[in-house]
Amino acid sequence: MEANKKIGEELLRLRDKNPLVHHITNYVTANDCANITLAIGASPVMADDINEVRDITAMVSSLVINLGTLSKQRLEAMLAAAYTARGLRIPVVLDLVGVGAIPSRLAAAYKIIEEAEPAVVKGNMSEVKALYGMDVKAKGVDAALMPGSEESEVSEAASIAKELAKKLRAVIVITGKVDIITDGEALYRVENGNYMMSRVTGAGCMCTSLIASYIGAGAEPLTAALAGVVSMGIAGDVAFERLNDTLGGTGSFKVYLIDAIYNLTEKAIIERGIIHEA
Amino acid sequence: MEANKKIGEELLRLRDKNPLVHHITNYVTANDCANITLAIGASPVMADDINEVRDITAMVSSLVINLGTLSKQRLEAMLAAAYTARGLRIPVVLDLVGVGAIPSRLAAAYKIIEEAEPAVVKGNMSEVKALYGMDVKAKGVDAALMPGSEESEVSEAASIAKELAKKLRAVIVITGKVDIITDGEALYRVENGNYMMSRVTGAGCMCTSLIASYIGAGAEPLTAALAGVVSMGIAGDVAFERLNDTLGGTGSFKVYLIDAIYNLTEKAIIERGIIHEA
Amino acid sequence: MEANKKIGEELLRLRDKNPLVHHITNYVTANDCANITLAIGASPVMADDINEVRDITAMVSSLVINLGTLSKQRLEAMLAAAYTARGLRIPVVLDLVGVGAIPSRLAAAYKIIEEAEPAVVKGNMSEVKALYGMDVKAKGVDAALMPGSEESEVSEAASIAKELAKKLRAVIVITGKVDIITDGEALYRVENGNYMMSRVTGAGCMCTSLIASYIGAGAEPLTAALAGVVSMGIAGDVAFERLNDTLGGTGSFKVYLIDAIYNLTEKAIIERGIIHEA
Repeated sequence: MEANKKIGEELLRLRDKNPLVHHITNYVTANDCANITLAIGASPVMADDINEVRDITAMVSSLVINLGTLSKQRLEAMLAAAYTARGLRIPVVLDLVGVGAIPSRLAAAYKIIEEAEPAVVKGNMSEVKALYGMDVKAKGVDAALMPGSEESEVSEAASIAKELAKKLRAVIVITGKVDIITDGEALYRVENGNYMMSRVTGAGCMCTSLIASYIGAGAEPLTAALAGVVSMGIAGDVAFERLNDTLGGTGSFKVYLIDAIYNLTEKAIIERGIIHEA
Repeated sequence: MEANKKIGEELLRLRDKNPLVHHITNYVTANDCANITLAIGASPVMADDINEVRDITAMVSSLVINLGTLSKQRLEAMLAAAYTARGLRIPVVLDLVGVGAIPSRLAAAYKIIEEAEPAVVKGNMSEVKALYGMDVKAKGVDAALMPGSEESEVSEAASIAKELAKKLRAVIVITGKVDIITDGEALYRVENGNYMMSRVTGAGCMCTSLIASYIGAGAEPLTAALAGVVSMGIAGDVAFERLNDTLGGTGSFKVYLIDAIYNLTEKAIIERGIIHEA
Repeated sequence: MEANKKIGEELLRLRDKNPLVHHITNYVTANDCANITLAIGASPVMADDINEVRDITAMVSSLVINLGTLSKQRLEAMLAAAYTARGLRIPVVLDLVGVGAIPSRLAAAYKIIEEAEPAVVKGNMSEVKALYGMDVKAKGVDAALMPGSEESEVSEAASIAKELAKKLRAVIVITGKVDIITDGEALYRVENGNYMMSRVTGAGCMCTSLIASYIGAGAEPLTAALAGVVSMGIAGDVAFERLNDTLGGTGSFKVYLIDAIYNLTEKAIIERGIIHEA
C-alpha cells in the first residue's frame, strides 16, 4: 500500500506539472501515444527529424525512444536526441519494440543505450532476453506474452531483469501477465491488466508514454516505471469491466483504455493497484 | 453455403494458428490494419526499413504490400521484401491503393508484381482498371465506389478481373458495392457491406490485412480472398446495425468494425455471408 | 446569423461537391484528418513523396500543408506541391503546427508561404506570434491554449492576426478558447468548443482539414476558414454533451468528434454557431 500511495501522489504531481514529453516513436501507434500522454495529464511532442530533435529534446522534461517501425533516419534522430538528453540530464525511457525478432534493431538498441544512458528500459520477455544476450525466437512484436503467471517464469524474468538493471544502471520493466519492475535492488511485480491488452496494438507503447510522463513530472525512475505500469494495468481492468455487452471488442477496448487513463484517480490507484514487492 | 462453411472453418483455423503477418503499409491506416489483424486472431508486424524487412519477411506467414503513402524508401523495402517472400514461397497480398490516380504508383505496382508474384491483388474498380491498362480518372483513393450494383458494371468488373487473374496468375479482388473475387476460373460476388465503409478511411486496407491473415493461416489464395472480403463485409453490416442512435457516425462505425471482427464467429459467417458463385 | 446561414449553405455545397483534398501532413494525426475529411463530406488523398505530390496536387480541389512531424523529405514535397498549387490556383491551407517551439520549422513555414501563397494560415497563439516575428516560448504543440477568454488577450490576438493577414494576403486563423478569423478587414470571433479539444491530439489538424474541405468546395477563404472553425467547435460541443457518464473520457470524445462532424447539419450550424463579427 506504501507503493500505491506513492503512485497516487505522483499522479497528482503529474497533473499539476503537465510535463512536456518528446516522443521519437513509430507511426503505427504514435496517435495512441499522443492521446494517452494527454489523457494522463502531460503534453506530447512528436518529432523525429534530425534537424528538429535536438531543439525539442532540449526543452522537454523527458524523452521516449520507441523502436517500432525503426528506420535509418529515425535511428540517427534518436541518437542525436539521446546525446542531447544525456548532456542535459533529461531522462530517457527506451521501449525495445521488436528487438527480440530483428537483429539490426537489437544492434540499434545497444547504440541508443550507450548514447542515452536511459533511466528506464522496457520490453516484453523476449525483447529483454534478447537485450540480455539470450537467443530468443520472438513471434512478432505484440505476441510475446511471457512472463506468464507460472512462478518459474516470473522468477526467471525477475532474475534477468535484476541483472540487466545492474549492468545498465537503469530501471528494467518486463511486461507480461505479471509485470516486473526493478532497479537491480528493489523489485516489484504488478498483476493488473488482462489479455485484451495484447489484442490491441499499442498498449505497450502507451505504457511507455505513461512512464515518461511520470518521470517528466519528477518521479524517480523506479517509481515512474511502477506508476506507468500500474496506471496502464488499472486502465486495462477498468476498460475490460466496461465491455459489458456482447458487441464490445478490441475497438471499444482501446477507446476505453484512453478514457480510463483520463479518468484515473489517486483513489483508484490506491484501491485497485495490485503491487507485490519482492 | 458451401463457400460460407469453408470460410467459417478457415476462421477457426486462423484463430488456432495465429499467423504472423508482415505489413509494409501506409502511415494513415497502419494502426487500423494492426488492430484488425489482432482482432481477427493473427499478429501484425509493421516494418518498412530496407535493413529490417528481409529478416522480418523471412519469419512470417504472409506479407501485405499496401501502396498508400508510397515513398521511394518504402518502395525499395517492398521490392526487397517481395524478393525474399517469393524465394521462400511466403504468400504476398498486394493492395493497389491509389494506382488509378497516380501514374508513378501504377509503375511501382508493376514492379512489385514482377518481383513478388503476389497470390492476391486487390483494388477498387478504377485501380484494377488502371492495372489492366485502361485509362481511368480516379477520384482520390477512397472514393471510387464502382462496381455499383448495376448488372452491366458488375459484368464488366467480372470480366476484367478474370482476364487479369489469368494474366497475373493471381487472385484478383475488386471491391465496391458488389465485391468480385476470382482466380480466373471460379468467380464469386459478395454483397455484404454498406456505404458507410467508404466514409471511413482504411476499410479497404483492413480488408487486405484480413485476406493476408487468412492466407497466412494456410487458406488457399481464392478462399483467403473470399474469406477476407466476406469477413469485412459482415463486420460492416454488424457495425451499421449497431449505429442505433442519432448521434452515431463514422467515428463510432470504425470502432464497431474492429469490434465486429473481434467478435466474428463461424456461425455469423454461415448465416450472414452473401456469396454468389458465378 | 448572416454568417451562420452562409456557413450552413457552404456545408450543403460541400456535401454536394465532395471535393478532393490533398494532405501533406504528419503521421500522428493523418488517420484522424482523413476520417474528418470523409465525415464532413469531402475525400482525402494523403501522399507526401516528391515523386507523387505534383501529380496529385494537380487533380485536387485544395491542398493541406501541415507542419507536424516535419522532415526534410516531406518539406521538399510540400514545396513542390506548393509550386504546383500556386500555378494552378489551387487553394492551400497551411497549419503552423509547432513553429512556436522549433526554429527550423518556423523557417520552413516562411519558405512554404513564399512558394504557396496560402489562402489560409492557421495556428495557435504562440505559433502565429512566432510567424509574426515575436519571441515566444511555446509549450509543445498541443498546449498553447491562448488566446484565452480575457478581453486583453483576445484583442492582442485580433490585432496580430489582422496585421499578419494584410502582410501575407491570407486569411489568418488563431485557435484558442476564443478563435479569431480575419482576412485583414473583416474579423470574426468564434466561441464554440471546449477544453476537451486540447486534451486529444489532432483537433487542430482536423479543423485545418475541414477548412480545406470547405475551400475545396468553392467557399471563399474567409468563409471557409470561419466554416471550418465553427464546424469543429460545434462538433466539440456536441461531443462534450454526449460524454454523459462517468466513464467517458478523451478516447470517447475523439470518436464523438468525428461522429458529430458526420452528423453536422445546416440547422445545427444556424442554431449552435457562436460567431461575433468585430
